[in-house]
Amino acid sequence: MDQSQQFLAWELFIIFLAAKLVGALFERLRLPAVLGEILAGVLIGPYALGWIHPSITLESIAEIGAIFVLFDAGLETSPGDLIRVGRTALLVAVAGVLVPFVLGFGYMKLIGDQTKEAIFVGAAMVATSVGITARVLADLNVLSSQLAKVILGAAVFDDILGMVILALVAGLARSGGVDWLRLGILLGESIGFTLFMILVAPRIVRRVQTRVEGLSLRDAPLSLALVVCLLLSWLTAKIGMAAIIGAFFAGLMFAEFAPRWNLNPKAQAINEFFAPFFFFSIGAKLDVKLLSGTVLETALVISLLAIVSKVAGCGLPMMKEGWHPALAVGFGMMPRGEVALIVALAGLSTAIVTQETYAVVVFMTGITTVLAPPALRILFRPERQEAVRAPRME
Amino acid sequence: MDQSQQFLAWELFIIFLAAKLVGALFERLRLPAVLGEILAGVLIGPYALGWIHPSITLESIAEIGAIFVLFDAGLETSPGDLIRVGRTALLVAVAGVLVPFVLGFGYMKLIGDQTKEAIFVGAAMVATSVGITARVLADLNVLSSQLAKVILGAAVFDDILGMVILALVAGLARSGGVDWLRLGILLGESIGFTLFMILVAPRIVRRVQTRVEGLSLRDAPLSLALVVCLLLSWLTAKIGMAAIIGAFFAGLMFAEFAPRWNLNPKAQAINEFFAPFFFFSIGAKLDVKLLSGTVLETALVISLLAIVSKVAGCGLPMMKEGWHPALAVGFGMMPRGEVALIVALAGLSTAIVTQETYAVVVFMTGITTVLAPPALRILFRPERQEAVRAPRME
Repeated sequence: MDQSQQFLAWELFIIFLAAKLVGALFERLRLPAVLGEILAGVLIGPYALGWIHPSITLESIAEIGAIFVLFDAGLETSPGDLIRVGRTALLVAVAGVLVPFVLGFGYMKLIGDQTKEAIFVGAAMVATSVGITARVLADLNVLSSQLAKVILGAAVFDDILGMVILALVAGLARSGGVDWLRLGILLGESIGFTLFMILVAPRIVRRVQTRVEGLSLRDAPLSLALVVCLLLSWLTAKIGMAAIIGAFFAGLMFAEFAPRWNLNPKAQAINEFFAPFFFFSIGAKLDVKLLSGTVLETALVISLLAIVSKVAGCGLPMMKEGWHPALAVGFGMMPRGEVALIVALAGLSTAIVTQETYAVVVFMTGITTVLAPPALRILFRPERQEAVRAPRME
Repeated sequence: MDQSQQFLAWELFIIFLAAKLVGALFERLRLPAVLGEILAGVLIGPYALGWIHPSITLESIAEIGAIFVLFDAGLETSPGDLIRVGRTALLVAVAGVLVPFVLGFGYMKLIGDQTKEAIFVGAAMVATSVGITARVLADLNVLSSQLAKVILGAAVFDDILGMVILALVAGLARSGGVDWLRLGILLGESIGFTLFMILVAPRIVRRVQTRVEGLSLRDAPLSLALVVCLLLSWLTAKIGMAAIIGAFFAGLMFAEFAPRWNLNPKAQAINEFFAPFFFFSIGAKLDVKLLSGTVLETALVISLLAIVSKVAGCGLPMMKEGWHPALAVGFGMMPRGEVALIVALAGLSTAIVTQETYAVVVFMTGITTVLAPPALRILFRPERQEAVRAPRME
């Protein structure tokens, strides 16, 4: 027993330390810490220094990490706001999904890629990272502005669309072809589930509120939220969506009561432990030596397309309000993250996506994430000057 | 990928739900929730209903759970208090370790047990559960009383003694005999490490305090505490103590600054997620059908001995202050928990302890834990009437 215990403790320690160290370095350079954590995985993972060859247990912990990243993001999203900015956000999301997918898929086909792999690349370019976007907007202190709400709403919707595309892509990976009936069912299920989780589920929590608070259980609300989080993660995985989308909706369900039950700092604490393992494992799967020659070229073009397509796609529906809101929303939607990486991982693990293409997608995720904070710092200047600097939540 | 993800999510969900449900039921019956979580493991684990056959990943998550249970307990212990009640607590601890060990070992030899197994049973009877004791005293609102501090201090010291005995026992399991030189080194290391962690380590945190707060890292104190927790867990496992004792000392090291950095609710939140898996897995290893006939008889005698020996051993050094403090401290030290179960598990996994004897130890843990709350409720009546009912921490 103690041998394996010792190994587990060592693996956890070294990964956590590396992720936090490089993360802190990145924050000091005013870059998102997330990128530092991924870089830590690249550095000490099997393809570079080779200190760590992630075990099965570690992969599972990374998966739980992804679940809590999205649960936390859900907790910080208000279903009410989502409904209020719904129409605009939905338009932004749909356009912001279609344009990147078409451009990404088209370019990969153009350079002679397999159709299946091209679909994976297109799918990976679709979903804006709610987590990174929310973090950047929070750092700028503009989360309560109208534009930020549109961005977050659209980011949520395009995650859902991204999930549907992921399911399509996963079906593709399993069966070798697209089962249109199955896809139709999945699309129906996804839309029904999404509507239920946004419109009905939060009311359930409201209804059982007093009963939850009366439960004879230490920190009953947190326990209940965790139970629901795990339940929905399993359920969404079972019906063919991804576990993380269930986790996101579980968070959303409890978002209204999160301040009252003090859920956010608690979910954040759990996240603080788990998330580095997720981001580290993303990096650990990247063979950075592949990024040279034509692969690097492809990575640069795909990154450029990812930026242009999001800014154009998401900006277009906002043009009626002028250039400035259009650009702010467009650049706000630029960073890709978890979903892109999960799509790429799904492709990699089923051998549809090559190591090279995986590297392209991770590179694209990095570039779009690095460029978002400076772009938004400029574009949100008016909102920042208006905003009363409220004391930052810890 | 999605198959394993689905399975992981299912396993996590069903275990967490079962543990929380039975835990809530127990709290309603005014019994410790911990016992309910263990019972959940017994019920749906492989030996009864057989719904869950814990995977390797799950075992690792349970081990991380044990680490966070002790980390949390450490965070809630003040090194200053430990030093202040040190002499009395140390006396209580030593007597409370010797008497149970001798009685437990003696009885098992008497009924014809193997020497090695008898040592494991004796060792399992040694350590009072800091976690359960602290929880019961907190529930009674008497944590700040002098007696409670003696109890907690002694519980900490006997955990350390228990760890040394565990190391002895582990050495026994590995080598087939006791390597006295190695044991001497371990004892020296343990004492040195303990003194260092109680006297010096908290000062290190005090010294780097401002630098930690200036770190450009989201929630730097929590990150640092987690890094230290994982580091010490690995280190103690490496030098032959148990990972959990390192986790405990990591908590102790940060205890002084825990309120300022708001560490307790965060560690508790992480714990809230992990701990049920630990306690569940304890139950899942118990074949409850074995508890009949002579095994049940042994279990009852060992439980009785565990109670009498702790109350007598720990009460004796307190007799100079009268019967009441002696009994309060004696019964306060009664509940066994994590360490006992870890000792038993170590024995089980190395096949020195049989399934039957494992069942005896788990039964003993359950009995001593169930009886502590009602006994303490009576014995702490004077302190409870004095205590100002401070608002409970969430």
